[in-house]
Amino acid sequence: MTRRMNFFVLSWLLLLLSLPEINNAVPEPEEYKTYIVQMDHSRKPPSFSTHELWHRSILRSLSDPVDDEESFGKLFTTHSPSFLGLKHNFGLWPAASYGEGVIIGVLDTGIWPDSESFSDEGMSPVPRRWEGKCENGTAFSPTACNNKLIGARSFSKGIHAALGNVSNELDYDSARDFEGHGTHTSSTAAGNHVLGVSHFGLARGTARGVAPHAHVAMYKVLWETDSGNSAASDVLAGMDQAIADGVDIMSLSLGFDQVPYFDDLIAIASLSAVEKGIVVVCAAGNDGSRNSTYNGAPWITTVGAGTLDRSFTAKVTLGNGATFEGTSYFPESIYISNTPLYYGKTDTNKAICNLGALDSKETARKVVVCDNGDGKIDVYSQMEELNRVNAYAGIFISDMPDIDPEDYNIPSMVLPTRSGKLVKEYGLNASEAHIRSMRFMFTSLSIKPAPEVADFSSRGPDPVNPNILKPDIIAPGVDILAAVAPNRAFMETGNYKLVTDYALYSGTSMAAPHVAGMAALLKAVHPEWSPAAIRSAMMTTAYNINNNGTSLTNQLLNIPGTPLDYGAGHIDPNKAMDPGLIYDIEFQDGGRNELNYPSFISILSKDEKSPKVKKFSRVVTNVGDEESSYEANATSSNEMRITVEPATLTFSDKYQKQSFSVSLEISEEAPPVVFGYIKWSDQHSHLVSSPIVVLNL
Amino acid sequence: MTRRMNFFVLSWLLLLLSLPEINNAVPEPEEYKTYIVQMDHSRKPPSFSTHELWHRSILRSLSDPVDDEESFGKLFTTHSPSFLGLKHNFGLWPAASYGEGVIIGVLDTGIWPDSESFSDEGMSPVPRRWEGKCENGTAFSPTACNNKLIGARSFSKGIHAALGNVSNELDYDSARDFEGHGTHTSSTAAGNHVLGVSHFGLARGTARGVAPHAHVAMYKVLWETDSGNSAASDVLAGMDQAIADGVDIMSLSLGFDQVPYFDDLIAIASLSAVEKGIVVVCAAGNDGSRNSTYNGAPWITTVGAGTLDRSFTAKVTLGNGATFEGTSYFPESIYISNTPLYYGKTDTNKAICNLGALDSKETARKVVVCDNGDGKIDVYSQMEELNRVNAYAGIFISDMPDIDPEDYNIPSMVLPTRSGKLVKEYGLNASEAHIRSMRFMFTSLSIKPAPEVADFSSRGPDPVNPNILKPDIIAPGVDILAAVAPNRAFMETGNYKLVTDYALYSGTSMAAPHVAGMAALLKAVHPEWSPAAIRSAMMTTAYNINNNGTSLTNQLLNIPGTPLDYGAGHIDPNKAMDPGLIYDIEFQDGGRNELNYPSFISILSKDEKSPKVKKFSRVVTNVGDEESSYEANATSSNEMRITVEPATLTFSDKYQKQSFSVSLEISEEAPPVVFGYIKWSDQHSHLVSSPIVVLNL
Repeated sequence: MTRRMNFFVLSWLLLLLSLPEINNAVPEPEEYKTYIVQMDHSRKPPSFSTHELWHRSILRSLSDPVDDEESFGKLFTTHSPSFLGLKHNFGLWPAASYGEGVIIGVLDTGIWPDSESFSDEGMSPVPRRWEGKCENGTAFSPTACNNKLIGARSFSKGIHAALGNVSNELDYDSARDFEGHGTHTSSTAAGNHVLGVSHFGLARGTARGVAPHAHVAMYKVLWETDSGNSAASDVLAGMDQAIADGVDIMSLSLGFDQVPYFDDLIAIASLSAVEKGIVVVCAAGNDGSRNSTYNGAPWITTVGAGTLDRSFTAKVTLGNGATFEGTSYFPESIYISNTPLYYGKTDTNKAICNLGALDSKETARKVVVCDNGDGKIDVYSQMEELNRVNAYAGIFISDMPDIDPEDYNIPSMVLPTRSGKLVKEYGLNASEAHIRSMRFMFTSLSIKPAPEVADFSSRGPDPVNPNILKPDIIAPGVDILAAVAPNRAFMETGNYKLVTDYALYSGTSMAAPHVAGMAALLKAVHPEWSPAAIRSAMMTTAYNINNNGTSLTNQLLNIPGTPLDYGAGHIDPNKAMDPGLIYDIEFQDGGRNELNYPSFISILSKDEKSPKVKKFSRVVTNVGDEESSYEANATSSNEMRITVEPATLTFSDKYQKQSFSVSLEISEEAPPVVFGYIKWSDQHSHLVSSPIVVLNL
Repeated sequence: MTRRMNFFVLSWLLLLLSLPEINNAVPEPEEYKTYIVQMDHSRKPPSFSTHELWHRSILRSLSDPVDDEESFGKLFTTHSPSFLGLKHNFGLWPAASYGEGVIIGVLDTGIWPDSESFSDEGMSPVPRRWEGKCENGTAFSPTACNNKLIGARSFSKGIHAALGNVSNELDYDSARDFEGHGTHTSSTAAGNHVLGVSHFGLARGTARGVAPHAHVAMYKVLWETDSGNSAASDVLAGMDQAIADGVDIMSLSLGFDQVPYFDDLIAIASLSAVEKGIVVVCAAGNDGSRNSTYNGAPWITTVGAGTLDRSFTAKVTLGNGATFEGTSYFPESIYISNTPLYYGKTDTNKAICNLGALDSKETARKVVVCDNGDGKIDVYSQMEELNRVNAYAGIFISDMPDIDPEDYNIPSMVLPTRSGKLVKEYGLNASEAHIRSMRFMFTSLSIKPAPEVADFSSRGPDPVNPNILKPDIIAPGVDILAAVAPNRAFMETGNYKLVTDYALYSGTSMAAPHVAGMAALLKAVHPEWSPAAIRSAMMTTAYNINNNGTSLTNQLLNIPGTPLDYGAGHIDPNKAMDPGLIYDIEFQDGGRNELNYPSFISILSKDEKSPKVKKFSRVVTNVGDEESSYEANATSSNEMRITVEPATLTFSDKYQKQSFSVSLEISEEAPPVVFGYIKWSDQHSHLVSSPIVVLNL
């Protein structure tokens, strides 16, 4: 069985009878009212070439029988602040006072308010402008709120209407988090400092959000029920309410199937938010494949997931003294010594631990080696087989193990084939093959290469609008330690359910709140910056070189990625504080033909005649020193020639704007994906980088 | 089965063929040399009224056939710095620079040098005066030493001679710690700061020694073998070497059977150390009963054990909604919900979970309630029975449970009879009795009353010399979290052995290194103070009022103690830094008839005529302000009248000495133990307190 914890595929019910009035930020109390759709022309999504097309699309969407349409909503599911370079005595953290005064609205499964991560020690008071509230409900008293958690509301009219009342057995009818996902994302974005937490002893250390002094408001829009998890109308109502309440940043670790923006309620509500200066950060999705990004509207910051430089391992020493280290999330600190080793040897089914192949008479109380059989069987199934035959422990040999932390229900580790080969040889040849010792629960830092693009992270381009390069950026999203619902079983060992206050989750759900927290920090330093400016600062300062000094690679495959995998690259908070130049966008401004995006993508037809040429125009705003001069430097493979005109931009004032154009010339031999970068640099170490992608389709 | 982890009863072999030359600090290389005993008259132990008696005792001891005598050596086995009031911004820690420059020699089972507690981050360099070394040996390279661990030697000639070579299977033939005890005591005394450690998740927090910047030197003198643990000659050789190497403080969490000082090698070597200005701190023993203190020589600081204000608990909610909290050290974070409850009801044997009484058909996968049957069966045996019948979890009802952290091999908790009664009633009467939820792994602080005198702490007086009140003092010794050998199984759950880097140990072994660390801090602040002065400062500033504001009580019994339980009281490091007056002792000075001890004890015969009168004389040295005046205040029960003469002491200079006498008059109705206190107080909040005990035997 293949599973990815915290990447939940949720069925959702589109209960929207008609489009709510998105101008009216506070929803009407009536449940099924027909709204008047006010088409504010300044809000036309840039993907529509004319307003008329936009109008017609909206009208078409209203006439669709969407009330009984079923689709899928997806819930995209901490060394990370340190990995991001955030420091107490330097850079963005102290400059932003850790996000003081900024409000992050999180739309998710609710929140566990009693978590230490939501202590308000050291927090500033609730901002006066705040209009949100802490709603009473099942297991949720308004007194649960404080100066950290300043709002908590739940939105369940849609899901109630579809399913009847939400059963208390399955979820709390309140903002309290049953599932744990929303507690995790909220504490990742803005959790306070909590010392000495861990995932059953793994990843031990101090938990803290990216903006530990920002305020949090929870909008519970995702529910745990027997037959559905989210109603789009609830998500929309939550977003509308968050706008009305006065959040500065909105974080959404969820997504619905990719549809045109005018059918995409998240896109529509986000546009309304962005127009009001609210930064909307969304997870890119966990589909892992090309053309699979969710939430790709140009006004949304779309976030993919990267790995940290941390690994969790076990160590085994064979009877011959050879010692190997492999991946393990087994959550108990056990020690195995002088135990027989079993390897199926020449019987292929036994060697790969095929389900039903092993005999407990041969394997009971032994450490069993399971080959992955060249991918014929997954590690999860092998572990089931070892459980069935009472193996004492397992060693799985696989380079691409499909197993999650919660699957480790017997002591086991995964060895890469390189070292696994030596274990197999020992198991084949030794007369009394045995394990001298086996230890678990090691946490290693400074792992290389890191970051990598997570295997599950949805890749660009955006299937709805491939003319915007998505995801925009990547952030930590693999094995992120943050708060969860402490009464919810994380996993089982033996006959018992294990619970924890802090757990390792993976997903673009975990990456998005990192960027939301970072946006909160930038907002605290630059309250005048627009959402587009904040995103531009994050993108143009992102890096695409890993800690090995080479290009970012794709996890598991270990091959270099492209901007379709990581967008502009991996976030670098301290650099984003001072980007030098920004690519700003006024979304109300419908006059421009081309979106002033900080990245470039063009789709060319293979059939097009040579030379294939594409021209972009952009405007940058000086947010650095008053007098400054930037030189363009373009890099790419030989198949693409990049010309920037002018190649020098000179500024004499802050906020001064300068235009430039970028011309691409693609050679006939160009492969399907060609990419490069434009980097503007001044004499003060500002480097303003934008990725350029050309698809030859 | 009754066991106390970390209170090891070790068999030892007294291999001493003749007394080693204690004047010669570096032992001769020959193994079995006949030493010339130099009777240095200035060294006469105060317990001998004349030098002649001392001579004769020593000569008698030499003629004893001690070479094949067998006896028992005993190994007396962290929120504690915070419980002691040590703070980073106030008091003894900053004043002492955390013990910088002071060297603590620990005589124990060796050390795990790789423990993070022995990192030398922030440590000052090795003092130039240091003559110790880091010896090469099995799994111990001299490079393991650093600025924290500055010496590591092992002493095994005695144990080797008795048992043949120490087998590597049982112990490392080096200073490396196999057992974990020495790593625990060393890190308790002087471990560096280590964030986020825990005992399988319990007691989570920062581990640090009492003197986190003091240097540590390990003298391994205790061994894990098949048939014996320590040779007195090895302990003596280690102490001699520690003196020669230049330690400032010596910490011994071990003891041999109480014998007259002239037969007591620890006493003899300690005297030699104290004469050189080295503070010798020893554990008082874990016998728990009266007249059972070990290491009671007057030049030794003898330390009993107290509890911390911390508890480890589980919580259970019954089917009727009632919630109870009880003691639990179960080391896994499991969650039990909606599980049937079993209580043996009217069958007494089943109700008390007598071994063999339960039937797995009735109990399997249930939470089983076990009464302690008015003490007829201990919790350890009950747990064995629950294991036998596959109970899912256990609730033990007992006010004095005899169970240690490593015994919790199934999920279980101990409830006091008060709340246990309600669980039994529910189990008797409910139609479908069940547990709604049960959670483990809670750590609670600010528990009252605390400290209490640990039930196992050896009580005074010293059986060898009841004319000295022992123990001198108590310090934290229950559930102390410190570093251990990480490859040594702490306990087993299911079929697996659990290991940990930091573990909770209990014993006076844990109390002694707290006092050794405190002595190191005092030595750093007052390098000129003698060992007696340092002990006096610790004793006269100790407290005997708990956090309930009442007299210190005895653990489990919960009845008020006497100075025979806690000596002068519980250590108070910040106050000891500035004691005002000290009772100093020059042990070389044989001229005084009465030892200038900071406590008072007198043994009177019941047959003695009334009025029973006893007079003491003492000298105090002013170490506070130059000009000061102290008033005597004596408190006691009505059966004892205390007269201090003079009642006022006036000082005009620092280090000025003043004499006074104390007269006790005991009434005929006096009970077997009468006690009180003399407290000298000045106008500057100095309070110099000494306990007075009279035994009517």
